[in-house]
Amino acid sequence: MQWVKVLGGVVGAAALLGLGIIVGHFAIPKGADSPAPSASASQDLDLKILETVMEQLDANRIRENLRELSKEPHLATSPRDEALVQLLLQRWQDPESGLDSARTTEYEVLLSFPSGEQPNRVDVVNSTGAVLFSCRQSEENVTGEQGGPNVVPPYAAYAPPGTPQGPLVYANQGSEQDFKELQKEAVKLQDSIVLTRYGGVGRGAKAVNAAKYGVAGVLVYTDPKDINDGKSLPNETFPHSWCLPPSGVERGSYFEYFGDPLTPYLPATPSSFRLNSDNASGFPPIPIQPIGFEDARVLLCNLGGKLAPADWQGGLGCDYNLGPGFRLNGIFPEDSQVNVSVHNRLELRNSSNVLGIIRGAVEPDRYVLYGNHRDSWVHGAVDPSTGTAVLLELSRVLGTLLKKGTWRPRRSIVFASWGAEEFGLIGSTEFTEEFFSKLQERAVAYINVDISVFANATLRVQGTPPVQSVVFSAAKQISAPGSSGLSIYGNWIRYYNRSSSVYGLVPSVGTLGAGSDYAPFIHFLGISSMDIAYTYDRSKTSARIYPTYHTAFDTFDYVDKFLDPGFSSHQAVARTAGSVLLRLSDSLFLPLNVSDYSETLRSFLQAAENLRDLLEQHNISFGPLVTAVEKFEGAATSFNQRIATLREGTPDPLQVRMINDQLMLLERTFLNSQAFPEERYYNHVLWAPRTGSVATFPGLSNAYSQAENTGHEPAAWAEVQRQLSIVVAALEGAAATLRPVADL
Amino acid sequence: MQWVKVLGGVVGAAALLGLGIIVGHFAIPKGADSPAPSASASQDLDLKILETVMEQLDANRIRENLRELSKEPHLATSPRDEALVQLLLQRWQDPESGLDSARTTEYEVLLSFPSGEQPNRVDVVNSTGAVLFSCRQSEENVTGEQGGPNVVPPYAAYAPPGTPQGPLVYANQGSEQDFKELQKEAVKLQDSIVLTRYGGVGRGAKAVNAAKYGVAGVLVYTDPKDINDGKSLPNETFPHSWCLPPSGVERGSYFEYFGDPLTPYLPATPSSFRLNSDNASGFPPIPIQPIGFEDARVLLCNLGGKLAPADWQGGLGCDYNLGPGFRLNGIFPEDSQVNVSVHNRLELRNSSNVLGIIRGAVEPDRYVLYGNHRDSWVHGAVDPSTGTAVLLELSRVLGTLLKKGTWRPRRSIVFASWGAEEFGLIGSTEFTEEFFSKLQERAVAYINVDISVFANATLRVQGTPPVQSVVFSAAKQISAPGSSGLSIYGNWIRYYNRSSSVYGLVPSVGTLGAGSDYAPFIHFLGISSMDIAYTYDRSKTSARIYPTYHTAFDTFDYVDKFLDPGFSSHQAVARTAGSVLLRLSDSLFLPLNVSDYSETLRSFLQAAENLRDLLEQHNISFGPLVTAVEKFEGAATSFNQRIATLREGTPDPLQVRMINDQLMLLERTFLNSQAFPEERYYNHVLWAPRTGSVATFPGLSNAYSQAENTGHEPAAWAEVQRQLSIVVAALEGAAATLRPVADL
Repeated sequence: MQWVKVLGGVVGAAALLGLGIIVGHFAIPKGADSPAPSASASQDLDLKILETVMEQLDANRIRENLRELSKEPHLATSPRDEALVQLLLQRWQDPESGLDSARTTEYEVLLSFPSGEQPNRVDVVNSTGAVLFSCRQSEENVTGEQGGPNVVPPYAAYAPPGTPQGPLVYANQGSEQDFKELQKEAVKLQDSIVLTRYGGVGRGAKAVNAAKYGVAGVLVYTDPKDINDGKSLPNETFPHSWCLPPSGVERGSYFEYFGDPLTPYLPATPSSFRLNSDNASGFPPIPIQPIGFEDARVLLCNLGGKLAPADWQGGLGCDYNLGPGFRLNGIFPEDSQVNVSVHNRLELRNSSNVLGIIRGAVEPDRYVLYGNHRDSWVHGAVDPSTGTAVLLELSRVLGTLLKKGTWRPRRSIVFASWGAEEFGLIGSTEFTEEFFSKLQERAVAYINVDISVFANATLRVQGTPPVQSVVFSAAKQISAPGSSGLSIYGNWIRYYNRSSSVYGLVPSVGTLGAGSDYAPFIHFLGISSMDIAYTYDRSKTSARIYPTYHTAFDTFDYVDKFLDPGFSSHQAVARTAGSVLLRLSDSLFLPLNVSDYSETLRSFLQAAENLRDLLEQHNISFGPLVTAVEKFEGAATSFNQRIATLREGTPDPLQVRMINDQLMLLERTFLNSQAFPEERYYNHVLWAPRTGSVATFPGLSNAYSQAENTGHEPAAWAEVQRQLSIVVAALEGAAATLRPVADL
Repeated sequence: MQWVKVLGGVVGAAALLGLGIIVGHFAIPKGADSPAPSASASQDLDLKILETVMEQLDANRIRENLRELSKEPHLATSPRDEALVQLLLQRWQDPESGLDSARTTEYEVLLSFPSGEQPNRVDVVNSTGAVLFSCRQSEENVTGEQGGPNVVPPYAAYAPPGTPQGPLVYANQGSEQDFKELQKEAVKLQDSIVLTRYGGVGRGAKAVNAAKYGVAGVLVYTDPKDINDGKSLPNETFPHSWCLPPSGVERGSYFEYFGDPLTPYLPATPSSFRLNSDNASGFPPIPIQPIGFEDARVLLCNLGGKLAPADWQGGLGCDYNLGPGFRLNGIFPEDSQVNVSVHNRLELRNSSNVLGIIRGAVEPDRYVLYGNHRDSWVHGAVDPSTGTAVLLELSRVLGTLLKKGTWRPRRSIVFASWGAEEFGLIGSTEFTEEFFSKLQERAVAYINVDISVFANATLRVQGTPPVQSVVFSAAKQISAPGSSGLSIYGNWIRYYNRSSSVYGLVPSVGTLGAGSDYAPFIHFLGISSMDIAYTYDRSKTSARIYPTYHTAFDTFDYVDKFLDPGFSSHQAVARTAGSVLLRLSDSLFLPLNVSDYSETLRSFLQAAENLRDLLEQHNISFGPLVTAVEKFEGAATSFNQRIATLREGTPDPLQVRMINDQLMLLERTFLNSQAFPEERYYNHVLWAPRTGSVATFPGLSNAYSQAENTGHEPAAWAEVQRQLSIVVAALEGAAATLRPVADL
């Protein structure tokens, strides 16, 4: 329209020529270089769209999502879990607010459930076998939501069936150290039942450690000191506060690995090869059963034997003794024993993932993944529905822009709702196995928002170093909930910070373990990953996790009344994760700062320096590690300079693509499938589990620790050398990936 | 200049506007879409350049290269090998005809050499220990080139030192079957020395098989029937013909794996972790030594015992008996024994690769690799210098065009001269370990030209199915040497052909084993690879390989007089490989036809159909394999249609790049590092070694064979199921990679 006006005026030939040039330049796509009809190859992040998305993410809609998602228990593969699959499909296929397409992928996976006919039991029996006391078989129906057939009774998933009986021993957290302590104190463990507290070590590890000492069965409970800041009375706990009621029991998976237990490294299709469940590994070796602290109090406060060490004491209002057996003058005869009856069953079940995609306009073959699991233990309002409520709101806002034709991202976005996470990240792991090649080729990053709100204080992010920059950029531009006037970033830095050698004081981004569905993405596939949530003010609570975690008290009202009234923290997470998602999918240059790995490597190197003399005594030269770290640093710095130079000019689409490939694939260069033959899926040489005490490269730390523990055997030192070489090769490979692509 | 003329005429406003549009469109690069100054993103193969390269590849220059390369023995890491490193560097750094850059990469690798002080010996000794006969310790100096300190005496690299002595037994080719036959014939093998013929099984396997029967030492020789079409007299052999002289001995590596023996999966840098050579695996378990047929005749024609089976007989002009021990009335007392003294030593040596690069103009981050090894056993005129002579001529022609500014390829070209191939593909394997990530991310294809001319009859190509189309395209446009008037393709199809269900009669492309440096590229990294040579008319000779292979008679004159007088076959290989290289580096769309994998998969599936009933009896369902093959076929067909459609239009650079990424990465999708835990570097589920007799997927075939051999144990059938699932997952992943990239 504007052109007509111009043409209507008096214009000379020169002006017409000039105009022609302008029209020719801007209005007509270049021959073979022309972008696809709908897209410009230089499409970059649109700050207005970003702003629109931030505005439209609605706290109340998140609340309504949560109400719907958590209104019934939705244990993996249950009818309600399947109903939620349909809900997700329907939302993502909505003509007004849906995505380009959505589908499910199904896997036949091995889950573990308590028997419907024979409840698991924990009884105190006297010497004649008479039952003196029985632990609850279900939680108290406090709010009307803890009853009913769909509330799965507390159990330890994958614990083997069995009915061991023996004298009770208190084993603190069931760590290796705890059992050594008991042995030192000459407490007889053979054929005993040990009572352990949640915390310290993983669930399954308690049974693994116990079995090494001949323990016959294990109980585990949540101590009020660890979860309720000491509060344990009914009127101090939910629904009167956020604290765990006395009958609350944390359910959980006791499987040591992740992924479907029977199909490691293969997608669990119905026809897939399966291990025989009898010789599948990673299950607890002996029966184990969780109980509430109400019942634990009866057992523990009547225990005999020596007084347990000070740091083994808890919040049950009595002295904790070690046992074995009950004390004189307690409520049970001294020779009473504890009988644990576990009747769990392994079952093959069909579990679904739901996938929804927004096709990228320019680079549809680059995927930014955003996911959360769908399955819960009971109602799962917090875990995982706070995350799914955010996921649905984010997909609604983006879907609406998409359907209106307002926006289409540069890269493809894949939303995912994973199944059977609670049993061991099963849906997400099977997905990475099924789409192994495609994801390794094309996935830019994985954003995980599982529990989106643990508490209202501050953002908390875990991720690999390259995601720090994009999270910071997002968090700086969003207001924190509340009246502080701070940005999410400004608020965050008050709670969790560190002194960076590069940036000064910055919020600290945590590392990724295997606590949620990001694990297969980062450890198995080397995809830059992150987990985003709002969380606690640690000066206000020392709770191990939010108190109703994995119990029947994790309900909508719990969130609505105690965790996030008003849902402003949910909204803050939705905005942060949404902004990160948009930046990753829409920016011309991927907003991953690979040079932020340098700080990590430098800190690992510094920690390793403590081992230098010892290594060199064993003829392991330390120099190549120093050189490799320096090479990485140099390559990363130069690489960032090249990006900066390109940004100043007008880079062509292939130049941008080449840089982005380097950015995307840097994380892959840290994978080595030969590095940890004893582990499952852990290929990332920087983030595999570290059990050694030296805070350096995990393989090196663990091998060094092993060398120390085995009296410095040559084979153990050979493994130290091997691990060092693996790290050096990975760092050299990473540096090579960042160098100018035509350099030799 | 043309524009000025136009502007000089009388033009109206409309014309000026139109002109302006044209100028704006064609003359001014688009902002962010503009190509790099030196390149157009749509740069495609230039047929004129291709023609120029074909014309400039000069037979006489190849001959001169060969003369220089083969004028002295250049055993890996020898001074002459190092001198050739300098020669290559100098050529590739030449200001007139060199590449953009060249450098070496060095590795410290474990090689094996005969002792300089204590020669290896093979003696016949009588019962008192007196030596009755000694085999030659070196070949006869027939042409003046077989003497001198740089001719390494015949030996079996990596054979352990030792001096076993015992009665002699003839064991044919030393296969498992051969030893079973001897056992059936009640020939005592314990503590014997066995004499074997080259062929049938790998070198190292002869010692491995023998050791299982308690054999103390092994001799191996080349039978005139197998190598000389029966000829064995001095005046029938080199320098009178291409046949192997009686004293000629094939050297070789007896290492079972490939790559540096001490650093599997790690680049052999000086500081790298190394296995202790005492517990490194893959070395022959007992001493073994090669001898010439001149000496073998003395031993074998005097052997006692039963007459060997008809197909064990050879060309030495006597009946071959089995032994043990010598015959009555022979030249040795019957109780004479054979003493084998092996004094080989393992040594860590520095071996160099030479790398030269031409930077791609448009996609410098895509690499087409072209390589050959440099090291030989003695002069190595044929092996490997016929290949290196071609390599140098090809790099000269391309380098000259490059330096003149006439041409720069779309993608980067990497030329490589590998070290220590003869010891087990060591230089190339260490290279793939060092640049593992970079190569997996960016390598388009690997072209290997080792021995470029075995004989003058026809082209011979081995490769993965996607390379068939580009080789055919190249071969159709080049004239075959000689006066047939046929193209190389037309000539080829007369010698080696097959009936394709898709194309009808076509030349047959062989599969890739581990015979040269392509092995780590295809098996370890999943890079589409090929090996190109000119070879025999099989109706004219049944020689196992060219007769002087790995002997001191493999000299320049041998090539110049007998193998390729005039060097026209060399030129044909240079043109074919050069055309393939240019097509891969310069074509807009990568000329890899992934749908040619469908034929392979279909044939594997058909072979597997024979197992179907048996599989289903063991509850292994066959349907998923059928479905997976069909899915691949469907995805590949649609993918090719999408390329065809894009070709009709004017695809933008990113659309082309996305397609090319799919083409490049398809081969990677067949990798599974969990598939073959017993193997080293074999990750490709379609091309791993097949020992089973059913010509199907190797893992399936081998597992099935194992199940048969172990009496159908459940664990063996579980492995059959596992292998089937691995193949299904790989094919599903491959199909997924070929589907439209935004499909779920």
